[in-house]
Amino acid sequence: MGSIPFAHMISVQEALEAIQCEVTPRKSELLAVDRALDFVLNEDIVSDQDVPQRDQSIVDGYAVRSSDFAIRGLQPEGSVVELEIVEEVTAGQVPTCEVQAGRTVRVMTGVAIPRGADAVVMTEQVDVLDEPGIPLGVARFNTKSVKEGQNVMPRGTSLVRGQGVLVAGTRLRSADIGLLAQMGREEVRVVSKPTLAVLPTGDELVAPGLLPGPGKIRNSNGPMLIACGRQLGLDVTDLGIGRDEPEVLRQMIECGLQADVLILSGGVSAGTRDFVPQVLEDLGVRTIFHKVRVKPGKPLWFGKAGNARQTLVFGLPGNPVSSFVCFHLFVNSALKKMGGESLDHASLPTATLTDRFDRVGDRAVYHPAQLFWNPQGPMLKCVRWQGSADLRALSEANALAVFPPSTVAYEAKARVAFLPLD
Amino acid sequence: MGSIPFAHMISVQEALEAIQCEVTPRKSELLAVDRALDFVLNEDIVSDQDVPQRDQSIVDGYAVRSSDFAIRGLQPEGSVVELEIVEEVTAGQVPTCEVQAGRTVRVMTGVAIPRGADAVVMTEQVDVLDEPGIPLGVARFNTKSVKEGQNVMPRGTSLVRGQGVLVAGTRLRSADIGLLAQMGREEVRVVSKPTLAVLPTGDELVAPGLLPGPGKIRNSNGPMLIACGRQLGLDVTDLGIGRDEPEVLRQMIECGLQADVLILSGGVSAGTRDFVPQVLEDLGVRTIFHKVRVKPGKPLWFGKAGNARQTLVFGLPGNPVSSFVCFHLFVNSALKKMGGESLDHASLPTATLTDRFDRVGDRAVYHPAQLFWNPQGPMLKCVRWQGSADLRALSEANALAVFPPSTVAYEAKARVAFLPLD
Repeated sequence: MGSIPFAHMISVQEALEAIQCEVTPRKSELLAVDRALDFVLNEDIVSDQDVPQRDQSIVDGYAVRSSDFAIRGLQPEGSVVELEIVEEVTAGQVPTCEVQAGRTVRVMTGVAIPRGADAVVMTEQVDVLDEPGIPLGVARFNTKSVKEGQNVMPRGTSLVRGQGVLVAGTRLRSADIGLLAQMGREEVRVVSKPTLAVLPTGDELVAPGLLPGPGKIRNSNGPMLIACGRQLGLDVTDLGIGRDEPEVLRQMIECGLQADVLILSGGVSAGTRDFVPQVLEDLGVRTIFHKVRVKPGKPLWFGKAGNARQTLVFGLPGNPVSSFVCFHLFVNSALKKMGGESLDHASLPTATLTDRFDRVGDRAVYHPAQLFWNPQGPMLKCVRWQGSADLRALSEANALAVFPPSTVAYEAKARVAFLPLD
Repeated sequence: MGSIPFAHMISVQEALEAIQCEVTPRKSELLAVDRALDFVLNEDIVSDQDVPQRDQSIVDGYAVRSSDFAIRGLQPEGSVVELEIVEEVTAGQVPTCEVQAGRTVRVMTGVAIPRGADAVVMTEQVDVLDEPGIPLGVARFNTKSVKEGQNVMPRGTSLVRGQGVLVAGTRLRSADIGLLAQMGREEVRVVSKPTLAVLPTGDELVAPGLLPGPGKIRNSNGPMLIACGRQLGLDVTDLGIGRDEPEVLRQMIECGLQADVLILSGGVSAGTRDFVPQVLEDLGVRTIFHKVRVKPGKPLWFGKAGNARQTLVFGLPGNPVSSFVCFHLFVNSALKKMGGESLDHASLPTATLTDRFDRVGDRAVYHPAQLFWNPQGPMLKCVRWQGSADLRALSEANALAVFPPSTVAYEAKARVAFLPLD
């Protein structure tokens, strides 16, 4: 077997572009709004009403004519404004009386401003006095002045009928769910989420419940990659452990090709029993690239099936940290686009490096790191990491620090991009 | 009704402390590891093995004695090292041959280093030559030198048997799930998640599917607060819409008290039909505080039931943005502690304010904002916001900018804390 020149390996950016080229967003579906959280909107939402629908009070208080207070400056020092309460309007009701000079209407938050009134004074600034012959009493105002429009939210302040509210491509968060309800939506059109199948391969793997004998290790990649998918809210099929036997692998991979995305781990290196690329080719999965200038994750294999579903297939390296990094860097970019979102790796957040980093070279390094905040801003500290097999390091990290290929070290205090890890 | 002096209102910090005082973490349960994602660990995990279990190769390559290369400096210029391949060890197998001088064993990534060998040369740096009488051929090394220990991961590098791996209180992420599998765990003890019930109240509310008549608005708080809970992975009960009738409210609240946390919205202001606090008192829910110096969210009510479950009850203001802010600020802190996590509001992340902010006063302001990253770091831009009823503003935001009480404006470029919004 000959040496593989570096020229055959593509860069991270080239790999991401190649993946994006092959992805088509999934079809859309109509979902009940209460199930649509975290899906990506596939329609534009336009307001069906003015919000608020009429001028309304933003406090519990008393609707007044500000002119009743304007003349107060002409009164003797210490005098207060007192107005007859003619109506009380609670939530869900509409005012029926007009507010004439010398009168006020008690209103609750969100209630329409009665005709005649142009301001609201908060309940906390008012004492109510009993007065014979006045059933609702008299309001005495402990306030110096009242401005026109005070505590009034004019009709259409938040939204005007016909105004765009949410655009297709928005991932729906809890506030958006509230907004959709406000717009009267019970159902909403979203992009369907892709389905995922996970198949770790290798004769060395045993189930986590077993004690690994000589030469064996427990299957940590399977549970981890399934968790990565579920973290994204995806339906994930656990295909079990694939043995290094072409016929067995073939059957399991055929099963995995029923998903939108099939993730294999292991079997894609230069090992003599790394059958995966051959089996995939036999099943009509076209190789798009094999090997990326990235550390960890160099042996990454990516292809696309010729089936109706056009399943994307990722052959991740068998070492758990490599697998994890490739998932977050490459698989995730495909899943996001399939689900209707775009991922922009060019605009990653950045933080200040705490310590010098000199493990640089021809490959971009994605190093497990701790992101923390000090008063000056976000800081990145690389965790002690013993390479691709060192899953403990990853568990200590909440980010991957990104070091593009370099011939010189990254000095302490350099600004470095990072991928946050959930 | 008299004015309520500011002294009766507590600060955000006092409110958070009062809430933390009342919370007890939920009981623990044993969960299958594949269901434990995002739960908080309730036991310490210790490594049951050295990882790796023996010195192993970190590449696909050839296990060699570095001394076979050390003497190369004594050879004529241009000569290369050639070693007889005596065995091939694939994943899951163990080497049987010792590597003697002049010999090599082909090993796959993760395979144990054979006796006699002290380094591994990558496959890419080796050509294999057919040689009569040597079944596996001869390895010709295209490499200048081989260091002792090269490409070898010594036993126990990642973890030593008995070493702490994960501590109680850790929220389990996907890498942790992989690590638990590596530790042989099929089940794990976690803190149970709290259950949540949501009851928006108010005669003004109509279901989202209806066209709101005069004085009415659609119920956006219910769907939004339910989504907030589900975003946290909680089991949420939708209690429907509570009308402003004490007897109806009483029945619905009794139902809600079967959850660990009951969230009401509306009915807690100074409105004449704000029955909620009275009904809660009748049901044995003790008031812990009412009103917080926060904007939005001032009327927040918090109490604790005398039932066996000791249900925590939050009466959130009826305006959707107030409700949302109170959920993220206060309810969330209770839910996190119940679920076994601690939330530290003192160490919030900070970002640089893009524009001057002068709507300051006696109350802390939590303002909807857009967090974005420029080359210098994280930036916060407050979105146009028309107050507590303006849900559109919240939908445009991905963070809440935190402005503690102040008599002077926050200038552009000030560093300001923020709460990220999912």
